[in-house]
Amino acid sequence: MSDATTTDLYEVTMVMSYLREDMTAPATFSLFARDLPDERGFLVAAGLEPALDYLSGLHIGPEDVEAFATALHRPPEDLRHLLGLRFTGDVRAVPEGRIVLAGEPLLEVTAPLPQAQLVETFVLNQLNHQTAAASKAARCVIAAAGHPVVDFSLRRTHGPQAGFAAARAGAMVGFAGTSNVAAATELGIPAVGTMAHSYIEAFADEEEAFRAFARAHPGPVAFLVDTYDTEEGVRTAARVLKELGPRVSEGGSGIRLDSGDLGALAARARALLDDAGLPRVGIIASGGLDEYAIEDLVRSGAPVDTYAVGTRVGVSADAPYLDTAYKLVEYDGRPVMKLSSAKATAPGRKQVFRGPEGADVIGLADEQPPDGATPLLETVMRNGRRTGRRTTLEECRERFTTDLDALPPQARRIREPVAPRATVSGPLSTLTARVRHHIEEQVAAA
Amino acid sequence: MSDATTTDLYEVTMVMSYLREDMTAPATFSLFARDLPDERGFLVAAGLEPALDYLSGLHIGPEDVEAFATALHRPPEDLRHLLGLRFTGDVRAVPEGRIVLAGEPLLEVTAPLPQAQLVETFVLNQLNHQTAAASKAARCVIAAAGHPVVDFSLRRTHGPQAGFAAARAGAMVGFAGTSNVAAATELGIPAVGTMAHSYIEAFADEEEAFRAFARAHPGPVAFLVDTYDTEEGVRTAARVLKELGPRVSEGGSGIRLDSGDLGALAARARALLDDAGLPRVGIIASGGLDEYAIEDLVRSGAPVDTYAVGTRVGVSADAPYLDTAYKLVEYDGRPVMKLSSAKATAPGRKQVFRGPEGADVIGLADEQPPDGATPLLETVMRNGRRTGRRTTLEECRERFTTDLDALPPQARRIREPVAPRATVSGPLSTLTARVRHHIEEQVAAA
Repeated sequence: MSDATTTDLYEVTMVMSYLREDMTAPATFSLFARDLPDERGFLVAAGLEPALDYLSGLHIGPEDVEAFATALHRPPEDLRHLLGLRFTGDVRAVPEGRIVLAGEPLLEVTAPLPQAQLVETFVLNQLNHQTAAASKAARCVIAAAGHPVVDFSLRRTHGPQAGFAAARAGAMVGFAGTSNVAAATELGIPAVGTMAHSYIEAFADEEEAFRAFARAHPGPVAFLVDTYDTEEGVRTAARVLKELGPRVSEGGSGIRLDSGDLGALAARARALLDDAGLPRVGIIASGGLDEYAIEDLVRSGAPVDTYAVGTRVGVSADAPYLDTAYKLVEYDGRPVMKLSSAKATAPGRKQVFRGPEGADVIGLADEQPPDGATPLLETVMRNGRRTGRRTTLEECRERFTTDLDALPPQARRIREPVAPRATVSGPLSTLTARVRHHIEEQVAAA
Repeated sequence: MSDATTTDLYEVTMVMSYLREDMTAPATFSLFARDLPDERGFLVAAGLEPALDYLSGLHIGPEDVEAFATALHRPPEDLRHLLGLRFTGDVRAVPEGRIVLAGEPLLEVTAPLPQAQLVETFVLNQLNHQTAAASKAARCVIAAAGHPVVDFSLRRTHGPQAGFAAARAGAMVGFAGTSNVAAATELGIPAVGTMAHSYIEAFADEEEAFRAFARAHPGPVAFLVDTYDTEEGVRTAARVLKELGPRVSEGGSGIRLDSGDLGALAARARALLDDAGLPRVGIIASGGLDEYAIEDLVRSGAPVDTYAVGTRVGVSADAPYLDTAYKLVEYDGRPVMKLSSAKATAPGRKQVFRGPEGADVIGLADEQPPDGATPLLETVMRNGRRTGRRTTLEECRERFTTDLDALPPQARRIREPVAPRATVSGPLSTLTARVRHHIEEQVAAA
């Protein structure tokens, strides 16, 4: 089976009906976050590249049809029109790494209705969780105030794919490395790591463990010091590191603190290392860290050099999902919208115009940009084919850094952030009012 | 690349050192949740089958060695001892579907130290997030008090794999179906779904949309009624359903409410459907539901027939991870433990003995079970091979139901649950004290 079956059943039943009714005119769906979680002052767009991979690779084969038929208790014959289906539409999207706000489309798909509908589940899945992950990671980078942040989350993400996505999301916003070997090698980002408590325990004592590690690994090394008694562990580590000579004194080596009062222990460790003549041995802090804990440590002046974040960041624990939607906004040239209480959507193909001061206006795709404003959504796929090359992580980092610099300070705050709100353009407001009025008349007449 | 590279880098660096030092004696690692999230009164063991698939399929090939070498900036030659490595160890584990508590091993691996260490990241990842997912799903089943619960989470899980795992976890504790076609067909569970708001909007009006859906799909149908005006939507649905005759009146059809005051709307919809002579048309509620919302609806007497849960359950939003650990407890016949503040672990291979009243005792693996108690951990893999056949979802459901019935009511509570605590056996307490004393003496002597 291909990715085609990674879909909600209703996409398939709707497509069957569209095909039966010959409803294959172009439809535009808009994917956006209705609102930001309270804990977020901004979002970082992510997940587009994997979504484009899915769209360009989508091809419903006989096995997929068989699966759909089984799921529906229908003969495969009833689904024959789906066989061979590919995605042949256009996609406009905000490039990965850019900052986006509530209501701003991250992506718009325009394709024959059955295709545009069928891809909803997978595309939403990719953009939702990866944007959540990148937004969380961005806050860690802000909190660390220039100190390197690295990703140790793989062991507790929601599966290996989620671990890969978390490593990628971190790298997009400036993480210095990941412990995830698959992600590091596939994405070309630094692989990082020290040792586990089990390693220390497998030896007769800490000193023997540290020495053995240094024997196996030339170059800089990092020792975990809190298996038994942290202060004693630092002394032992310092003794062994000192003996290693230039390979340590030249930098890149460290000790890792993974439990206890990290701020106080870092200060004590720093003093011990300095006293031992090891000023270039760094301190890595880990153990339940997230942007809140990092901010506290940085503000307290803790001499931590590198922050290793894990579970809480890898699952975006305080906001593990976004309130995203994939909504039909136009079908066969007709703008459409939904009126459901508290979930109303605005009709029409859209664009986001970012002003020179970072103020955003959500307008219609064919509007003239306001003076000095640049459009966020770019054409990334035409007729089912990518229009450009893949984005690089470096480009993502540049976009993120540029957008972050233009963001108001209260949006960058770790605690009680205030997210800017995009305004709605005149033409979009007018269209929304017109479509709403039209639907209300219809409902009243029914 | 195989699953072998889905690992933290430090597993590889430690393994290189173990091999260099000829430290290949048997080691036992114990995987357990240190504590339960405040929002949980119990956990449901899950993730074992995929973990066993990983262990039995693990095989480090040349591409994996290449990836490790790249990650470490070492020549592949330095990693030649890893080439061909497979998992040849034993695994004892709690079968999927059983209820477990804090501190109780979900799984113990006994294997040559390098192998037992290498598999940490992947095995932890599987058991952690799937146990979290099953535990969340179990609470939905309890809250629904006999009403069917179905999984609609795929679009906002942390990737497709996580969506599959969520569907499987739900089925393990009694969910009636999933919208996820891949999961439904692969796992043999019912696929369910209705239609999206976009479907309604693509037609000129609701009535036309409902009629078209019924044309495409014989048998029972379910109509989404809240796209424009919910009450009007119910009336329209009732009109169309009525015309469909026996295929609807024989049951299985429904209407879905996805927004607004679900309790009040369900009551109004029920009245309208009954007045229309459609007593067997059910009401499906969805839209941000979780066990808390379900409990409120059930307690208020809302006439909802089926609860469709999505995002909040699929990501286990209120507790998206567990505080699990994979700890070395024995190496080369020597029991070991960690003393780190607040993260101390107990040494030795363990067993959990469940008493007839559901009281649990954590003891040593070779202890005699207390009178009438049964051991939770079973041997599931020997010499790298499964000892039995795969468990079925039906067996999981039976285990879960049996264990749930024996659980104290306060552990089953949705709000402010109180988790039972396992007690520690005499022999395990004695061993823990002895090992701690021995380590403290060593540290003091250093």
